[in-house]
Amino acid sequence: MRPLSDPPLSPAADTGWRRHWFDIIYRHDTPPSRNFDLLLVAAIIASVLVVMLDSVQHLHARWSHWMYGVEWAFTVLFTAEYVARLMVVRRPLRYAFSIWGVIDLLSILPTYLSLLVPGAQSLLVVRALRILRVFRILKLTRYIEESGVLMHALWRSRRKVLVFLFTVITITIIAGALMYLLEGPAHGFSNIPSSMYWAVVTMATVGFGDIVPQTALGRFVTSVLILIGYSIIAVPTGIYTAELANSMREAGQQGQPSQDCSRCGLQTHVADARYCSRCGNALSIAAAD
Amino acid sequence: MRPLSDPPLSPAADTGWRRHWFDIIYRHDTPPSRNFDLLLVAAIIASVLVVMLDSVQHLHARWSHWMYGVEWAFTVLFTAEYVARLMVVRRPLRYAFSIWGVIDLLSILPTYLSLLVPGAQSLLVVRALRILRVFRILKLTRYIEESGVLMHALWRSRRKVLVFLFTVITITIIAGALMYLLEGPAHGFSNIPSSMYWAVVTMATVGFGDIVPQTALGRFVTSVLILIGYSIIAVPTGIYTAELANSMREAGQQGQPSQDCSRCGLQTHVADARYCSRCGNALSIAAAD
Amino acid sequence: MRPLSDPPLSPAADTGWRRHWFDIIYRHDTPPSRNFDLLLVAAIIASVLVVMLDSVQHLHARWSHWMYGVEWAFTVLFTAEYVARLMVVRRPLRYAFSIWGVIDLLSILPTYLSLLVPGAQSLLVVRALRILRVFRILKLTRYIEESGVLMHALWRSRRKVLVFLFTVITITIIAGALMYLLEGPAHGFSNIPSSMYWAVVTMATVGFGDIVPQTALGRFVTSVLILIGYSIIAVPTGIYTAELANSMREAGQQGQPSQDCSRCGLQTHVADARYCSRCGNALSIAAAD
Amino acid sequence: MRPLSDPPLSPAADTGWRRHWFDIIYRHDTPPSRNFDLLLVAAIIASVLVVMLDSVQHLHARWSHWMYGVEWAFTVLFTAEYVARLMVVRRPLRYAFSIWGVIDLLSILPTYLSLLVPGAQSLLVVRALRILRVFRILKLTRYIEESGVLMHALWRSRRKVLVFLFTVITITIIAGALMYLLEGPAHGFSNIPSSMYWAVVTMATVGFGDIVPQTALGRFVTSVLILIGYSIIAVPTGIYTAELANSMREAGQQGQPSQDCSRCGLQTHVADARYCSRCGNALSIAAAD
Repeated sequence: MRPLSDPPLSPAADTGWRRHWFDIIYRHDTPPSRNFDLLLVAAIIASVLVVMLDSVQHLHARWSHWMYGVEWAFTVLFTAEYVARLMVVRRPLRYAFSIWGVIDLLSILPTYLSLLVPGAQSLLVVRALRILRVFRILKLTRYIEESGVLMHALWRSRRKVLVFLFTVITITIIAGALMYLLEGPAHGFSNIPSSMYWAVVTMATVGFGDIVPQTALGRFVTSVLILIGYSIIAVPTGIYTAELANSMREAGQQGQPSQDCSRCGLQTHVADARYCSRCGNALSIAAAD
Repeated sequence: MRPLSDPPLSPAADTGWRRHWFDIIYRHDTPPSRNFDLLLVAAIIASVLVVMLDSVQHLHARWSHWMYGVEWAFTVLFTAEYVARLMVVRRPLRYAFSIWGVIDLLSILPTYLSLLVPGAQSLLVVRALRILRVFRILKLTRYIEESGVLMHALWRSRRKVLVFLFTVITITIIAGALMYLLEGPAHGFSNIPSSMYWAVVTMATVGFGDIVPQTALGRFVTSVLILIGYSIIAVPTGIYTAELANSMREAGQQGQPSQDCSRCGLQTHVADARYCSRCGNALSIAAAD
Repeated sequence: MRPLSDPPLSPAADTGWRRHWFDIIYRHDTPPSRNFDLLLVAAIIASVLVVMLDSVQHLHARWSHWMYGVEWAFTVLFTAEYVARLMVVRRPLRYAFSIWGVIDLLSILPTYLSLLVPGAQSLLVVRALRILRVFRILKLTRYIEESGVLMHALWRSRRKVLVFLFTVITITIIAGALMYLLEGPAHGFSNIPSSMYWAVVTMATVGFGDIVPQTALGRFVTSVLILIGYSIIAVPTGIYTAELANSMREAGQQGQPSQDCSRCGLQTHVADARYCSRCGNALSIAAAD
Repeated sequence: MRPLSDPPLSPAADTGWRRHWFDIIYRHDTPPSRNFDLLLVAAIIASVLVVMLDSVQHLHARWSHWMYGVEWAFTVLFTAEYVARLMVVRRPLRYAFSIWGVIDLLSILPTYLSLLVPGAQSLLVVRALRILRVFRILKLTRYIEESGVLMHALWRSRRKVLVFLFTVITITIIAGALMYLLEGPAHGFSNIPSSMYWAVVTMATVGFGDIVPQTALGRFVTSVLILIGYSIIAVPTGIYTAELANSMREAGQQGQPSQDCSRCGLQTHVADARYCSRCGNALSIAAAD
């Protein structure tokens, strides 16, 4: 539900430097910890930029030595951070196997791997995933809450989306095979998987134009396929909008602070509730938003 | 309304092997029947994959004999299944003429046909439609219910969608003829049907780029057509979202029959309310979802 | 509001053949008038098909004489229908200057024009507009009502759509000029109008690919423009969905038959109204839908 | 919230010509001020058209001298207007640093700049931004209100849109690097920034087709990326629709302040209700829209 938040970790010690550094690294509400987050995100963005620029040939030709050095510097830095994270936490494995722990590890491995396998540095862009930590620097709780609403709506629409995806895949297979029969390898539809790639590109209205129908019948089938895809695009939007409206309504109701029942503590009430719906206790009416 | 569910079929006999196999084949809630469904879906996916891979030239060149054998094996298997389905059911024709019965038949015919007409094997991808049986393996009832909500919303918006489709087709014809006059065969708009194909591709924002306007006037008309198409895409999405929100609300309400307050008559309660939020009266609790 | 309905026309005479033919031509609820509508729509579709096929070169080469004859036959037929429509109605000019009257005239003129200006036949596709008469053959009133709801929502969102269109046009002009400066005629952005055509094609996610940025800066600006366009597509959909939901709610409320106030006749009540909101009269509560 | 409205400016003097011209220039509700607005918008559109046409080579070759003159004429005119705006207002700097003041200045600078830097005239299209003044000529207040609702919904969804944008950028970086590894410079994916440009073009369903995957694996990853992009397009639409529905509801409610029933307290009434629909009590009528 809240994929951007840390797992609930506790410090390795109650006092001393490990407690001190735990607060800096894992908390986000004190000035030192905020500065740490800021520096970290800056380093992540810088290191991703270096990987990108290194792939541009004329920059690589000229600055390759510098970039190589910078890359190793960032890798050493992130390795130190990873080790520190493991050291100051009570149960290091709990961090290491959390989503963030895995991402943190993946973002330093490629450089070491590149000593064995040349070219592995490009995998360093996995570091980009760490950019999502940026939400911690911005006014944290609000954004996590908003992303919580978005994820909640996605989660609630998962079954409808699965039904939708199966239908799309089935249409793709049928359409791909049909166009392979109609147009054939001579017109670029060289086999059924290629035709299916074309069907996805067409139905999703991307339309690269690298493969196009050339017979009259093929063009007619394409037009029908496009109209189907055009109607189908309404489905996930409709599902998501309806679920999001529900999630937002509930989140909005939870956010009205004085609606909590003083007896049983229930928070979810309808907008103009005067009695708690769980225990029947009279609510103190708040001046609504 | 519920296109993925079987027609209501009854077993050919109340006891004996036909009853036994009826339960395995047509029910989905006992361990043997779930294993049967699992095996069947695995076989369907495998057979569709073989048809796809057989269309790739360099695989066909090398493995054509093996694939030919596998294809026949699956066909014999599915034929046996089809015959079994006919035998264990009380009214075989009812199954044979149901949607699933026709799909099951179509998914074995092409192999036999290919003995007469070479190339007919590609039609085997019709088997892909059988993949929709996968919903039975997953937690069945929930998915059928969800797809019921999706279909119900589609069904309710059918008239609006028809009005929409007629309008789109009319715009396509007019735009196609106009561009044929403006650009002409020299710029790829070789006749009105081709121009209409271009208009569909353009209005639906696919934009292959195989046919493009080259005169200033043609580009202006194209821009206007695109803006029209861009506004029109809002229409089916809007229709579907509004209908889906209605269907979801109703589906939610059908699940909570006794929510009306017996004292003040208020109908809008939160999902698990036990007391009326307006007058505090105890609600008779319904067996929730 | 109801663009597909006839203007309120009255017969030229109360009895006699003019009254008889008025009923056949202008009404849609008696067997003879429904047959007339059916024949008319069939003739319209056939004549549009002939115009389309005539534009295909290899068909034209072979069947040009036949098609020429068929075209004139349809034109004579539609001319007779047009004259009949004028004759049986009390105020012919009211019909002639209604939307349908103008379309009916435009759909016969091009053939006569082609005697003077060769190639004018292609304009005959204007006849396609007459296909919209098809709604009369289908269960008439329901469709007109549905299209009424769609039009009503469009009408209510007109101001928001205008604000939106002005914004899009302004972005198009700015983006077009910027890309003309960045890429220049060498890369296909040959002048500002062409660049604007490219900006529309790109922002609306059509993406023909006939003109594409080739410099790094141009590609960056394009990415930003696409993300803007991608967010902007949400705006008309959002506007239309919200307005349509409103219109449907109102239409639904109007459709609950026993909600009419027995004193003042007001039809629009909230779903659980017990008193008329205009005159205060107690409503007889209907068993809701 | 109301980006199209002027900042609250007061006249430089209470009487005399400065007061007179202040009314003409800054107000929009008297006949002279409406004529001034009309002339101004006409001049803006004409001057933008001249800049556009001047970029078309064959027009430039022939009319370049004329256009040069017209351009300077408009620049002098707009300079005079800018100076007048500064002179008649009490606090000129407040105007100069408002959004409109900056746009007004930017729309005259390029011509003067072109004396020093050739080619700077193309920047004159910034003038297009001034076209937004057109809303003042149309029935002013209604449009500003509508754009207020649109902006309000955008503003309320800003956090959700930011979360969404960060996610899209992260996916773009990962997908760009992955395709760079899979396809490589030989197939047009010449470096990671180019691959990211391709990923944006593909995910947003633009699909120019200037860079396309050619390996089987690359096509498979592309298909997955497209399906992700296809699902993701639902997110901003869903966010915006839900927020817009909220904003519209509130805007509607703000316009009907006295709709609460004084007897039973019911708040939901139809727009022009005069009696409470629950208890039949007469409502105090508000001056409706």
